[in-house]
Amino acid sequence: MGKTVILAHGSGSKLSHDLVEKNLLQPLHNDLLAKLDDSAVFDVRGKLAFTTDSYVVSPIFFPGGDIGRLAVCGTVNDLSMSGAVPLYLSLALIIEEGLPLEDLDKIVNSIKVTTEEAGIQVITGDTKVVNKGSVDKIFINTAGIGLISDGVDISGSNAKAGDKIILSGSIGDHGIAVLSLREGFDFKVPVQSDCAPLNGLVADMLEASKNIHVLRDPTRGGLATTLNEIASQSDVGISIFEDKVPVHDGVRGACELLGFDPLYIANEGKTVAFVAADDAEKVLAAMKNNNYGKEAAIIGEVTESRKGKVVLKTRLGASRMIDMLTGELLPRIC
Amino acid sequence: MGKTVILAHGSGSKLSHDLVEKNLLQPLHNDLLAKLDDSAVFDVRGKLAFTTDSYVVSPIFFPGGDIGRLAVCGTVNDLSMSGAVPLYLSLALIIEEGLPLEDLDKIVNSIKVTTEEAGIQVITGDTKVVNKGSVDKIFINTAGIGLISDGVDISGSNAKAGDKIILSGSIGDHGIAVLSLREGFDFKVPVQSDCAPLNGLVADMLEASKNIHVLRDPTRGGLATTLNEIASQSDVGISIFEDKVPVHDGVRGACELLGFDPLYIANEGKTVAFVAADDAEKVLAAMKNNNYGKEAAIIGEVTESRKGKVVLKTRLGASRMIDMLTGELLPRIC
Repeated sequence: MGKTVILAHGSGSKLSHDLVEKNLLQPLHNDLLAKLDDSAVFDVRGKLAFTTDSYVVSPIFFPGGDIGRLAVCGTVNDLSMSGAVPLYLSLALIIEEGLPLEDLDKIVNSIKVTTEEAGIQVITGDTKVVNKGSVDKIFINTAGIGLISDGVDISGSNAKAGDKIILSGSIGDHGIAVLSLREGFDFKVPVQSDCAPLNGLVADMLEASKNIHVLRDPTRGGLATTLNEIASQSDVGISIFEDKVPVHDGVRGACELLGFDPLYIANEGKTVAFVAADDAEKVLAAMKNNNYGKEAAIIGEVTESRKGKVVLKTRLGASRMIDMLTGELLPRIC
Repeated sequence: MGKTVILAHGSGSKLSHDLVEKNLLQPLHNDLLAKLDDSAVFDVRGKLAFTTDSYVVSPIFFPGGDIGRLAVCGTVNDLSMSGAVPLYLSLALIIEEGLPLEDLDKIVNSIKVTTEEAGIQVITGDTKVVNKGSVDKIFINTAGIGLISDGVDISGSNAKAGDKIILSGSIGDHGIAVLSLREGFDFKVPVQSDCAPLNGLVADMLEASKNIHVLRDPTRGGLATTLNEIASQSDVGISIFEDKVPVHDGVRGACELLGFDPLYIANEGKTVAFVAADDAEKVLAAMKNNNYGKEAAIIGEVTESRKGKVVLKTRLGASRMIDMLTGELLPRIC
């Protein structure tokens, strides 16, 4: 059996210092992180975005990602959805006594690779170790800081009647990938999580047009819940065409089998954008040129009528109201 | 039995929205938090400090505080120890299914009261609910952002030979308060946690002198570990006079009984300051005038010799080396 994390690794003792030095600071090295003061210090001027998320996904390794990649992408994406260029992350680990050090190293390496892909740095952190049974393996919190350029004004309350709604790709992949591993389902078409940092995609979109009014990543609660949030925040109606929403075969099959609706399944590498109609094709083209936007599609539009509501036009021409998720669908998906 | 938190409270569903709205946004209300976008957005220019900590203390309510007050104070203090004026906090909760809503409300109220005392705002947050047994009651992460004034240059690597070392008050109170409740010890002299936000104290100190070289709060690992960190970061020697270090009777008694050394017990409302000798009395006087520095004392000085080492001069005139904490003393103290 390999080495594991023990309680003394979290005590503030010499052993904690060794763990932080060898297993965190060395792989994630940068000048700001290396200072090891109580806070990281940097110069900035402008409009800042600040966000946080805790990650409690189970299992911690899943097809297409792990809790480390998820913790970087989730916070990078929350910043990106505010139109911010992500700059810095904090990283706080809560580790269960007994976690194999090998697992920790895999997670930290995944954090390293993902921060490099996103072009950001972890500059401050914290490590706690708790006794067996007090946490399930490892939970991670990241907070992030990003800088918003002049002229960018993106918010869930900015949707306007006439806006086109663009989705960056297929829905439901993350939720189904985690669920199928956790429950031991063996679907014919294997599903990979879409977990990805979207700051590059958003940069490409903002270069194509400044008339992007809303960006949001449809995570917990899925696309349906996200659209309902925006309809309510902006006090507009939203109309979606069912046959325009990309869903991979594996996800569609799994959902049919389990009685789920892909509209409510979590995504971790998708964005939904509300764009002034005149600029929609330009933004769509920019998205399709990015690796994380190849399957992008205009899926609907914003309406004056039915304020606060989301209406789905089905393949057969019928309309049905799409509500927020009620109850719990898939716990610990992120 | 009262109402409890259920899994659906964390799903991104309507019920999650209701919990966030009623139990978090209403008590912690401010304009930035109320926007409910993926990030909070604010203007800033200057030198920023950024820090994070997760809080896993057990039990979650203890004499002199609770996990909510601790989560605010810990991050406010980390910012303050960088010489920053704390501005904003993020707040991320991981809640075990079944936590009484009454407990959640008590914790959130404590967060509210403590942020008001510290004059800061929670502007972004996250709530996860996990199944019973996956986390012990509630863990909290706060990250914080603060602004460092011109002319302030405080770091663990700035200690200079000749600096006086000032401690803001008695040591060991937090660790012993939590431990005695957890283990059911019934000490003759009850001990209260010292958990407190120190930004006001640090502001008073910086008004008295800009020649403060190091500030640090001796939390996990206690004063001994903190001094060792600074000796190593600054490559200086540190000399401490045992009889100058304030220890309350209750803490001293408990430590004697349990075979602990107060130098290694965690504090949550204390700072140790390294100040140019000429300004030490001025800074000390400013501290004694603040509610959280009444028992402040000069406890030692920085030496050219014995670089990287901490030496304790005992009451009887002997010298002994004080090392960092080794192993685990008290898990889940913060």
